[in-house]
Parts: sequence; structure tokens; C-alpha cells
Amino acid sequence: MTEPSSPYPQLRVNSDRFRADFDELAQIGATPEGGVNRLALSPEDLLARAWFADKIEAAGLTVKDDDAGNLSGVLRSRDPAAKTLMIGSHLDSVPNGGRFDGSTGVLAALECLRVIKENNITLPVHLEAISFTDDEGCWRSLFGSRAVAGLLTEDDIEDRRVDNAPFRAALTRAGIDPRKVFHAERPSSSLAGYLELHIEQGERLARADKDIGVVVGIVGRTTYRFTFYGQAAHSGTTDMYRRRDALRGAALFIVRAHDAVREKYGDGVFNCGGVVVKPGAFNIIPSEADLLVECRHVNARLMSEMEMMIVQIARECAATHGLNFNSEQVAHVPAAHMDERIMAAIEQAARHLNLSTLNLTSYAGHDSQILSRITPCGMLFIPSIDGISHNPREFTHWENVIKGANTLLHAMLSYALAEA
Amino acid sequence: MTEPSSPYPQLRVNSDRFRADFDELAQIGATPEGGVNRLALSPEDLLARAWFADKIEAAGLTVKDDDAGNLSGVLRSRDPAAKTLMIGSHLDSVPNGGRFDGSTGVLAALECLRVIKENNITLPVHLEAISFTDDEGCWRSLFGSRAVAGLLTEDDIEDRRVDNAPFRAALTRAGIDPRKVFHAERPSSSLAGYLELHIEQGERLARADKDIGVVVGIVGRTTYRFTFYGQAAHSGTTDMYRRRDALRGAALFIVRAHDAVREKYGDGVFNCGGVVVKPGAFNIIPSEADLLVECRHVNARLMSEMEMMIVQIARECAATHGLNFNSEQVAHVPAAHMDERIMAAIEQAARHLNLSTLNLTSYAGHDSQILSRITPCGMLFIPSIDGISHNPREFTHWENVIKGANTLLHAMLSYALAEA
Repeated sequence: MTEPSSPYPQLRVNSDRFRADFDELAQIGATPEGGVNRLALSPEDLLARAWFADKIEAAGLTVKDDDAGNLSGVLRSRDPAAKTLMIGSHLDSVPNGGRFDGSTGVLAALECLRVIKENNITLPVHLEAISFTDDEGCWRSLFGSRAVAGLLTEDDIEDRRVDNAPFRAALTRAGIDPRKVFHAERPSSSLAGYLELHIEQGERLARADKDIGVVVGIVGRTTYRFTFYGQAAHSGTTDMYRRRDALRGAALFIVRAHDAVREKYGDGVFNCGGVVVKPGAFNIIPSEADLLVECRHVNARLMSEMEMMIVQIARECAATHGLNFNSEQVAHVPAAHMDERIMAAIEQAARHLNLSTLNLTSYAGHDSQILSRITPCGMLFIPSIDGISHNPREFTHWENVIKGANTLLHAMLSYALAEA
Repeated sequence: MTEPSSPYPQLRVNSDRFRADFDELAQIGATPEGGVNRLALSPEDLLARAWFADKIEAAGLTVKDDDAGNLSGVLRSRDPAAKTLMIGSHLDSVPNGGRFDGSTGVLAALECLRVIKENNITLPVHLEAISFTDDEGCWRSLFGSRAVAGLLTEDDIEDRRVDNAPFRAALTRAGIDPRKVFHAERPSSSLAGYLELHIEQGERLARADKDIGVVVGIVGRTTYRFTFYGQAAHSGTTDMYRRRDALRGAALFIVRAHDAVREKYGDGVFNCGGVVVKPGAFNIIPSEADLLVECRHVNARLMSEMEMMIVQIARECAATHGLNFNSEQVAHVPAAHMDERIMAAIEQAARHLNLSTLNLTSYAGHDSQILSRITPCGMLFIPSIDGISHNPREFTHWENVIKGANTLLHAMLSYALAEA
């Protein structure tokens, strides 16, 4: 049997220490249902950041926070001119989210750096365990990684299109100067790459009975606000055939759009995540229904086709009920490909650890989707029980977390050494 | 030509004085769109009540407020043992409602009492121009009239089924002791009847080119909270065919219920006035959709059939999408019949004034629906432009308001004198 080589074959993360970190972090913003509420820049998120900074210091690493609130622990190379290999994820959560999403990746990165430091391993790159600001988009989706990639625009901060005052206030409360977030941009030449461990948030690994998912690409994602405008009127006295009921039109859209995406776009994803109805009383016909709409597809051309179809369905449903309609694109992130060399490093690390792998597309957006525009990126997934995510019941067996962390450790070492 | 007799044939309301009141009241809680926001017990509602009390005093009438916050101007009969004929409506509005709903009836009643007092007319009943608390149901639908009719229960005030603390706080802020609201009940034997002028909130008078609607009955009304429970999950990563999307099921219900009521219940009315979606983010599959549902029908048996159909549709839509479902009845007011003698008095008054009439059913709930359980009730409607109501664009030509007020004046006089 020819054992695949690894530069430090016996190296492993410290499972107990990692677990203690994980359990401590899960207490910050813990919800009664067993999940976490750590919306970006909320008091809970700020507590988690302070806790992470303490852990970085305790590990003897250098605390670094940039002008967009990204927070890192750095293990410097002896070569002051070395590039930086970032490894990380995010500490923020969706509302009432799970304990694993983001946290696992950040803490795995920290643990890897601790192990490398303890073993006095010398690398030709600086290592940076990083937590990116607002990955989940409580304020601005993938804000921290967009800042690093130089993709923020004045519209993200100023009041050109929308009132950004609450966002600026939240940044300021977190000690981030809204006028300086652009300074977080890093030159591509300073970076060696970015690696992220994350839960799969799906069931493909479990169904295929594999340990490690090697991400080959990330789907594109577009979000819209769709607003249907009707006429408020007394619900009892208005002729049933002359109503302009904004909610009735919106409901028809939700039903039809779900059906059409399933019928025509096998790899497409559609979600209507929320509706706000005005004025919102038992006895008033709704005058306005404001929908949160999201589309994902891995193929840019089909994605664009699918988006056009969805807007067209909305227009038809509005017309059916005599409503006016407006659509506003809120966010767009194009599909991304992961770096071949990093994918190979992950494969090799998994083989070294006798773990099975599966290549897969990520249907969730991640910071690597953004960072892949400026530096080579790679991601590895670990199995999620029943695929549940963005939910307090999100769960991954600790054994799988450790398998993922050890794969991350060996993949980053071999990739970092190859940089020399 | 045989002119129908009226006890005081030349008597008319003072249009200018009435109009000045109307315009003043419309300023209280005025919205930029030209409507009013005077939610029951809100600061605006309390201002309107204080203004009304001043007007009552200025007219030389007696201010009376009962333990449920109903506010009246009383013109006492010389007979201290006389019964009371109530005339009125409500000063509260729906959110962003119109200027005519409720206000017109309260101010017409006040104006009628002023005219009767000025003309030193002696009647065998006390007259009471009354504004009932929370007709619109911002807190508890038809609260004031239910208190007078002795239909309040401990559930309306105490925390047996729901948390009523905010309602109790609102009552207390308005100077109403929550423990004493039951004291507002009046014995049936003390009452001669109740008369109300109201805008039609529909288009039947205008289409038939009639001046005055003589209400023969009021539809029954039931409201429900329907809740669909699914499972929150990541919108990108969860298999499109294994989602338990609460909003998708709720939307299907809204579409199907609207279609089914129109198809099977020609006289039935259905409204879904609001939806609250949890957790409510672009990238989370909705775990909960909470709907405000309302049914109306003039026939009790068909009403009950229709309600069962709607609940059944909701259960089917929930099952289709793997959701759990719960329905909670929030309010139920049975259909009501108006008093024949009062209807005749309205007819006779309109004939005296050379106004045309149309008998019609009210598809809106009114305090007379409640009060008809303890005393004879009658209502007259005046035309609403385009039937628009519960909307800032609600409008009635002033000429029609005056026709209605004069009909009210003569109807109450002939009914009051017949009481002797």
C-alpha cells in the first residue's frame, strides 16, 4: 500500500480544545431551541467577536481587525514579504440559526493555526484565521469579503438608493467607521489563497456516505424585492369581483413561480422567504404585498433566463388581479469556480486521512464566492444531519467536524508549502 | 298629493355647523393621504374623544362616559323614568382609514340633538348621541357595544387565552379601569332603541341611484388566525422537492379559498387581510405563516358551511406541502335583523324629505349588530363614492351626508314619539 505523502503525517487538531471553544461560542446568542441568534453587528455578534479576539490572544497569535470589521488571528511567516493564506468563515448567524454554520469554519481555522504554532512548523506564507463581517446578509450579504475584494460601492454605505443610516449606525456601534470600510481592500498580490471548512447544509454527503465534500463551484444568487400594489378597501362591503387585492395576486405568484421553477429548471432554486402585507387587518383588503424573492443557479445563462421567467410570472399575476407591480434587484453574486490546486490539496489531505470525498456544487453562497475573484479559493464540506440548516436543529456529528478540521489542516499545509 | 306626515315637518339639521364639526374632527389623526389614523384608545382617539366631549358641553348637553369608554351627549326627557333612545356610531378608525366611517354617524347624532334642543322639542325618551369604543376592532371588535349589551367575557380582559396586558394598559391609559368594563352593561328595559347613520361602504345605492339605504340585516362575521407550520431551512441547499415551506402552503390556500368562495357562495365574503412570515429572510425557507382570515355571510347555515369549507381547504393545502396547521377562531358575531318599526320610521322620514330608498343588507359589521340583541335597532346608509372605504380615498358628497342626517332626525323623532 502506497500511503499518500503529507508533510507532517501525524499532525492532528486537538479535538477537546476545539470542542470546548465550540461549546463556549454556542452560548453567545444561544436561543431556547438550541440554536443561536447572532445577527451581524448585533450585541451578540459583538460579544462573539470579543470572545474570538481573546481566544486569538490566548493562543499567542496576533489579533488583526481591518476597516470592514473582519477579525483575524495571524501566524506570521519568518519571511516578512510572504503572501497570506486566509482560512476562515464567519461568526454571524441568520435569525434563529444553528450553531455550526460559520462557527465551525472559524474555530477550525483557529485550531489549525494553534496546532501549527505549537509544532513550530515553518511556512512560506502568513496564515490568517479570519471571520468575515455579515456573511449572512443581515445588513449586506458577504460584506466583509466584498470589502477585502474591493467590491464595495458607495451604494453599500451612502443613501443613494436606500436609507443606509441604520447600517451606518450599526457599523459605528461596532467600532467600524462607515467612511473607512473601503480601506479593507487587499491587493491580490498579497494573498496566497483562501480556504474554508463549512457544513454542507444539504444531504448529498450523507446519501453518498462520504466524509468530505470537495466544492467545485458555488451557484450564482440574485435577490429581489417584488411589490404588488392594489387598493385598500373594506373587506365586507367591496364587491367580491371588483377587488384589487395585493395579497391575492402575490399568493398566485408564489404558487406559480414555485411550480414553474421546478418544472423548467431542474438545477434552479427559488425561494420566497417573506411577505409584508399592508395595512394588515382582518377587515381590510390588502393594498400592498412586499415579497423577498431569491433565485440561484450554477449556470449564468440559465440563471438569467430563470430570473426573467419569474419576473414575467409576477407581472402576469399582478395583471390578473388589476395590480401594479414593481421589482427591485437587491443583490447579485455571480457563480464562482474553486481553484484546482486547492481542490487537489483537499483531495490529497482526505486520502492521507483515509477519508472518502465527493465533488459537489455549493447551493449556498459563501465568502469564497467573492474572494475567488482576487485569489485562489477552496472549500470543504462536512455532512449536515438531514441537511437541516439555518435552523436551531442544524447538526453535525463532532466526529465529522474533526475529520473536516484535520483535512483542512493537511490541505492548508500542503498548499502553503507548495507556495514556496 | 298626500304629503306624509312628520311631527316637525320643517325641522332640518344645520349643515354649516355640522360641516365645521366634520372638518375639525377630520384633522385629529389626519394622514398625508387625506384619511385618518385614529386607532381605538390611541393618542389620536383620545384626542377625538376629548374634542367630542367639548362639543357636547358646548351644545348644552350632558356628557356621559360609561365604564367601557363609550362617550355620549345626553338630552334628557322631562320624564325621569323615560327609556333612552341611543343614536350614534364610533370615532375610532382602521389604520389609515377614511374620514367618513363612524365620524359621520356620531356627528349627525350630535347635530340632531342640538336641533331638537334648540327647538325645545319635548320627547318621551332620553336621547343619547353615543360613540362606541373600538368598533373597528383595533383591540376587540365592537368592544363598547358588547359592553353595553353585557356580552363581554373575562376572556376579553384577563389572560386566560391570550396575553391581554397591552389591551389593559391601553384601557388604563384612556382612563378606563379594565376590571370595571363589565359595569357598562345596561338593562334592556332602560333602552328604547338604537339608530345609526353610516356610509354604505359599497356601490349599491349609487348603482340604483337611491339616496338612503334602509338596512334590513347585517351579515354574520367570523375571523380566524390560520397558522401553517413548516420547517426553516437554508433556501439554497435544501432539496427543492423536500421542502416544508409554510408560505408556499399558505399561498396555495389564499388562491384556492378565494376561488372556492366565489364559485360556491355568491353572497359569501372572504378576506385574507394579512400574513406574517417567520423567520422572514431571503435565504431561509419560511417555517411559519400566520394568516388573518375573515368570512361573512347573511345566512347562518351557509356561513357555517362556508367556514367549514375554508378550514378544509387550509388543511388540504397544508397536507400538500407537508405542513402542520392550526386554526383559531378570533371573533364571531352572528347575523342580525333590524327592527321593523325603526325601518318603517326611516322609510317614512325619507318619503317626507322626498328621498328615494333602497332596502339592503350590510356586509360590514356595526354596533347595531350587537345592540339588536337587547334593543330594537335600525340603520340608514348614505352613498359612498365608488364604494371605497377603510381607505383615505373614502368619500361621500356632503349633500348626501345632509340628506342622511335629516332622515335620521325625522326617523328618530317619529320613533321617539311613538314610544310614548
